[in-house]
Amino acid sequence: MKSLISYIQKHPVHMLLFAIPVSILSELLHWQPIWIFGFSALAVVPLAALIGESTEALAAYTGPKIGGLLNATLGNAAELIITIMAIRQGLLELVKASITGSIIGNLLLVMGLSMLLGGLKNGIQKFDRQQAANHAVMLVVVIVALIIPSFFSHSIGAEGSWGVESLSLGVAAVMIALYIAGLIYTLKMTRSPIAVASVAVETEVSRHRKPSQAIAVLTLSTLGVVVMSEFLVGSVEEVVVSLGVSEFFLGVILIPLIGNIAEHLVSVTVAVRNNMDLSMEIAVSSSLQIALFVAPLLVFVSLLMGNPLTLIFNRFELLALGGGVVIAAMVAFDGESNWLEGATLLGVYLILGIGFFLLPTGG
Amino acid sequence: MKSLISYIQKHPVHMLLFAIPVSILSELLHWQPIWIFGFSALAVVPLAALIGESTEALAAYTGPKIGGLLNATLGNAAELIITIMAIRQGLLELVKASITGSIIGNLLLVMGLSMLLGGLKNGIQKFDRQQAANHAVMLVVVIVALIIPSFFSHSIGAEGSWGVESLSLGVAAVMIALYIAGLIYTLKMTRSPIAVASVAVETEVSRHRKPSQAIAVLTLSTLGVVVMSEFLVGSVEEVVVSLGVSEFFLGVILIPLIGNIAEHLVSVTVAVRNNMDLSMEIAVSSSLQIALFVAPLLVFVSLLMGNPLTLIFNRFELLALGGGVVIAAMVAFDGESNWLEGATLLGVYLILGIGFFLLPTGG
Amino acid sequence: MKSLISYIQKHPVHMLLFAIPVSILSELLHWQPIWIFGFSALAVVPLAALIGESTEALAAYTGPKIGGLLNATLGNAAELIITIMAIRQGLLELVKASITGSIIGNLLLVMGLSMLLGGLKNGIQKFDRQQAANHAVMLVVVIVALIIPSFFSHSIGAEGSWGVESLSLGVAAVMIALYIAGLIYTLKMTRSPIAVASVAVETEVSRHRKPSQAIAVLTLSTLGVVVMSEFLVGSVEEVVVSLGVSEFFLGVILIPLIGNIAEHLVSVTVAVRNNMDLSMEIAVSSSLQIALFVAPLLVFVSLLMGNPLTLIFNRFELLALGGGVVIAAMVAFDGESNWLEGATLLGVYLILGIGFFLLPTGG
Repeated sequence: MKSLISYIQKHPVHMLLFAIPVSILSELLHWQPIWIFGFSALAVVPLAALIGESTEALAAYTGPKIGGLLNATLGNAAELIITIMAIRQGLLELVKASITGSIIGNLLLVMGLSMLLGGLKNGIQKFDRQQAANHAVMLVVVIVALIIPSFFSHSIGAEGSWGVESLSLGVAAVMIALYIAGLIYTLKMTRSPIAVASVAVETEVSRHRKPSQAIAVLTLSTLGVVVMSEFLVGSVEEVVVSLGVSEFFLGVILIPLIGNIAEHLVSVTVAVRNNMDLSMEIAVSSSLQIALFVAPLLVFVSLLMGNPLTLIFNRFELLALGGGVVIAAMVAFDGESNWLEGATLLGVYLILGIGFFLLPTGG
Repeated sequence: MKSLISYIQKHPVHMLLFAIPVSILSELLHWQPIWIFGFSALAVVPLAALIGESTEALAAYTGPKIGGLLNATLGNAAELIITIMAIRQGLLELVKASITGSIIGNLLLVMGLSMLLGGLKNGIQKFDRQQAANHAVMLVVVIVALIIPSFFSHSIGAEGSWGVESLSLGVAAVMIALYIAGLIYTLKMTRSPIAVASVAVETEVSRHRKPSQAIAVLTLSTLGVVVMSEFLVGSVEEVVVSLGVSEFFLGVILIPLIGNIAEHLVSVTVAVRNNMDLSMEIAVSSSLQIALFVAPLLVFVSLLMGNPLTLIFNRFELLALGGGVVIAAMVAFDGESNWLEGATLLGVYLILGIGFFLLPTGG
Repeated sequence: MKSLISYIQKHPVHMLLFAIPVSILSELLHWQPIWIFGFSALAVVPLAALIGESTEALAAYTGPKIGGLLNATLGNAAELIITIMAIRQGLLELVKASITGSIIGNLLLVMGLSMLLGGLKNGIQKFDRQQAANHAVMLVVVIVALIIPSFFSHSIGAEGSWGVESLSLGVAAVMIALYIAGLIYTLKMTRSPIAVASVAVETEVSRHRKPSQAIAVLTLSTLGVVVMSEFLVGSVEEVVVSLGVSEFFLGVILIPLIGNIAEHLVSVTVAVRNNMDLSMEIAVSSSLQIALFVAPLLVFVSLLMGNPLTLIFNRFELLALGGGVVIAAMVAFDGESNWLEGATLLGVYLILGIGFFLLPTGG
C-alpha cells in the first residue's frame, strides 16, 4: 500500500489509469456518448505517458543515436493511433484539425506555459540562440511546405479529384523524404532538430527500467491506446452534436491535448527547472515530427484505408499554423524568454481557441 | 516679446496653437468643412504635444515606475479622444483604419524617417539587439492576436452578429489582460516593452516643470483635444466627399499623423542624436500600446456608447498590419540600421499610401 | 585541338554554344516548336554565362565601385531581354511568373543546393550573421512592397484600368527610386545589399581578359540572347499546348532557370568551396535586383511598348514570393547552414514546382 502511494506520488498521471475499466464499462453498458468520450479521453493520457516513458527507457539502453530514432518515431504514437482510428471513421476534417492543433499546442500552449511558469520561477531565462535558431528555421520551412498545397488546391480541382490527390501525395512524399534525411542527420550529428537527444530527457525526467519490461509496457500501453481511441472516436460525432461545439474546436483544442499532455508536462517541468533549451527543443521537435512524419504518413495510410486524407487545410487552420510558426520562430531567435512573453503566447492560443469555439458546428 | 520668440524657437510646434481660435471661428461661422477639418487638425498637433510634455513632466516627479505607467496610459490620449468622438459619430470604419494607421505609422513612417535621417547623420547605427528583439517578439505576437478575429469573423457571422461581437469582446478582454500583465511586468522590471522608461525620454527632450503646472496643462490640453476632435470628426464625412479621397486614406494616413506627430518628432530627433535604442523603443512601445490598450478599450467603450466596434479589419488593413510588423521585427532583430534601410521602410509606407489613396471612396 | 579541350574543361557550359546554330536551323526549317524552344533555351545558357563573365572582367578593370554598378545593372541582362521579348508577344502572365520564378529560384533552389552540397562537403557552414541579416532585411521589405499592389488591385479596378495602372506605375517608381538609392549607397559603402562586391566574385571564379575583348564578348552575347529569346518566346505558346503543362510552370520554373543557371552555378560552386558568405550574397543580391530593377523597369518598358505590364501577381505567385522570402530571411538570420537545411529548402521548391505543374493549363 505504502509503495502504491509512493508510486502515485512519483507518477500522479498514472492514477488516471482507473479510467480504462470505467471507459470499457461505459462502452459495454451504452452510457451517454459524452461519458464514453470523457473516460476514454482520460484513459489515453496515462497510456500515452507510459508509451513515452518506455520509449525513453529503451532509448537509455540503445544509446543516444538509436534512442533519437526511437523517440522520433514512437514519440507521437498515441496521436497517430487516434488519428488513424478517426480516418477509419471517415472523420477527415477532425484529423486535419488535430494535426493543426498538435502543432499550435506545442508552439503556443506548451511554449507559453513553459515560459510563463519558468519565467515566474527563474526570471529571464536564456537559451542557446544558435540551437534554437537552427530548429526554428527547419520549423518555418516545413510549415511553409505544409501550407502550400492548401493554396493551390482550389484551382487544381475539388477535394478528392485526381489533381488534388496527386498534390497531397507528392507533398507527403517530399515530407517523408525530408524526415528520412533528418533521421540520417540525427545518426551523424549529435543534435538534430527532429530527434531530441533522448538521454537528456531521460536524465531529467524518466527512470531506469529493464528493456524487456520497457517493451512489454510499450506493447500493452499501445494496445490500450488502440482500444481507447476506438471508443473515443466512435463517440465523437454524437458529442459534437450534444455539446454544440464545432468539430474544429474538438479537433484543434481537445484531441491534441489528450494525446500529448504527458509530453507537454515534461516540457513545462524542465522549463521550471530552468532548462529552457530542452523545453524549447521538446516543443519544436514534436511539431516537426507531426509535420514531417505523422501528417504525411496519414496521407499514405488513409489512401490504403480507402478514405484518402489530403493536406488541404481550411483558412482557420492555415492562420493558426502560420501564426503559430511565426511566433515560435521569433521567440526562438530572441534567445531569451520571460513570463510576459509566455503570457502573450497563451493569450494568442486563447484567442485562437475562442475563434474555433465560435465557429458554427457545420463548419 | 523676446521671451516669446525664444519660447517658440524651443517649441516650434506650439506655434500651431494659433489654429485653435481659428478652428473655433471656422466652426461658428460655418466655413467650408475642409477649413474646419484643416484647422482643427492643425490645432490637435500642439495639444497632443502638450499632453505628452506634461505627462513626461509628471513622470519625472513620480519616478520611472509610475512614470512608465503614466506614459503607457496617457501616451495615446489624443488618439483615444479622436477615435471615441469618431465612434460617437458612427464612423467605425474610420476608427479601425486609424488603429491600423497608427501602428504602421510608427513602424514604417517613424522608424523609416528615424533610420533615414539618423543614418545620413551618423552612418550605420547600432542598437541593443536583445532589447529590440524582446520588443519585436511582443509586437509580432500581439499583432498576430489582433488579426486573428478578422479571419474567423466571416464564417462566424455578419458584422454585428452575436458571434462576431463575442469574438471581439473575447479578444479585447485577452488584450487588456495582457496589457495589465505588461504593466505589472513594468513595475517589477527596469525595462518593459509596454512602457518606455520615461526618464530616458525626459532627459533627452522635455523640460522640468512643477507638477501642479503639469497637471493644469494636461487638463487644459486634454479638454482642447476633446473640442478640436469634435470639430474634426464632424467635418470628416463632408471632406471625404469633397476631396474624393477614400475614408481609408484619411483614416490610415492622415488621422494617425495628426494625433501622433509630436511623439513621432521625438523619435526622429533622438535617432538623429544617435540614440537609436530609444528611437526604436518609442516606435515599438507606441504600437504595442495601441494594439493592447487603445484598440480593446475602444471595443468596450463603443459597446457602452451603443455603437459597437469590432476588431474585424478588412484585408488591406490586415496586409498593412502584417507587412508592417514583419518588417519592423526584421529590422529590430537585425541590430543595426542605415539610411538605405530607412529609405526602404519609407518606400513601403509610400506604396501603402498609394494603395489606400487609390481605393474607391465607397470602400 | 588540345587548347579547345582544355578550354572546354575550364568552361564546360560553353559547350552549349553549339545550340545556337542548331536553334537557328530549327527556326529556318520550321521544326516542331518544342525543338526550337529546347535548342534556343539551351543556347541562352552559355550566352548568359558569357554576359556574366565579361561583366566581371570589365568590373575587374573599373574597380569595385563601378564594378558593383555594372554587376547590378548587367547582372540580369539575359533575363531582362527574354522578358521584354515576351512582353512584345503579349505574354504578360508568363513575364510575371518568371519574375516570381527568378526570385524563388534564387532563394530556394540556389540557396538550397548551395547549402546541401556545401554542407555535405564542409559540414556546418557559418557566415557573417550581420551581413546576411542586413541583406535579408532589405529583401523582406522589398518583397512586401512588391506584393502590396496585388492585394489592393481587385478593389481598385480591373487589370488594365486606370487605377490599377497608376498603382503599378507608382510602385514601380518607388522601386526604381529605392534602386537608385541603393546604387548611391554602393558608391559610398564598401558592401551594399544590391551589388555584390564584384572583385570578390572575380577572384573566385572568373578570369582576366582585356576590356576591349570583354566589351566585344558582351555585345555579341547580348545580341545572341536577343535572337535566341525571339525564338524561345515565339515557340512558348505552342509548347504549352503540346506539352500540356501550365504557362505558370514554364514561367516559374523553366524560364528563370534558363537565364540564370550560369549565375546559379557560381553560387553553388563558392558554397562548395566553403565561402558561404559570398554564396548567400549572390542569391540575395540577385533577388533584390529583380524586385527593385528588373520588375519596375519592365513596367515602364511595357507601357512604352503598348502592352502595359502590371505588378499584380496571382495568389500562387504571392504565396511563392512570401514563403520564399520568409524562409530566406530565417536562414540568413540563423548565421549558419547545414545540408539538412539545404535539403529542406529544395523540398519547398519541389513542392511549389509540383503545385505549379498541376495547375490547369488555362491558369
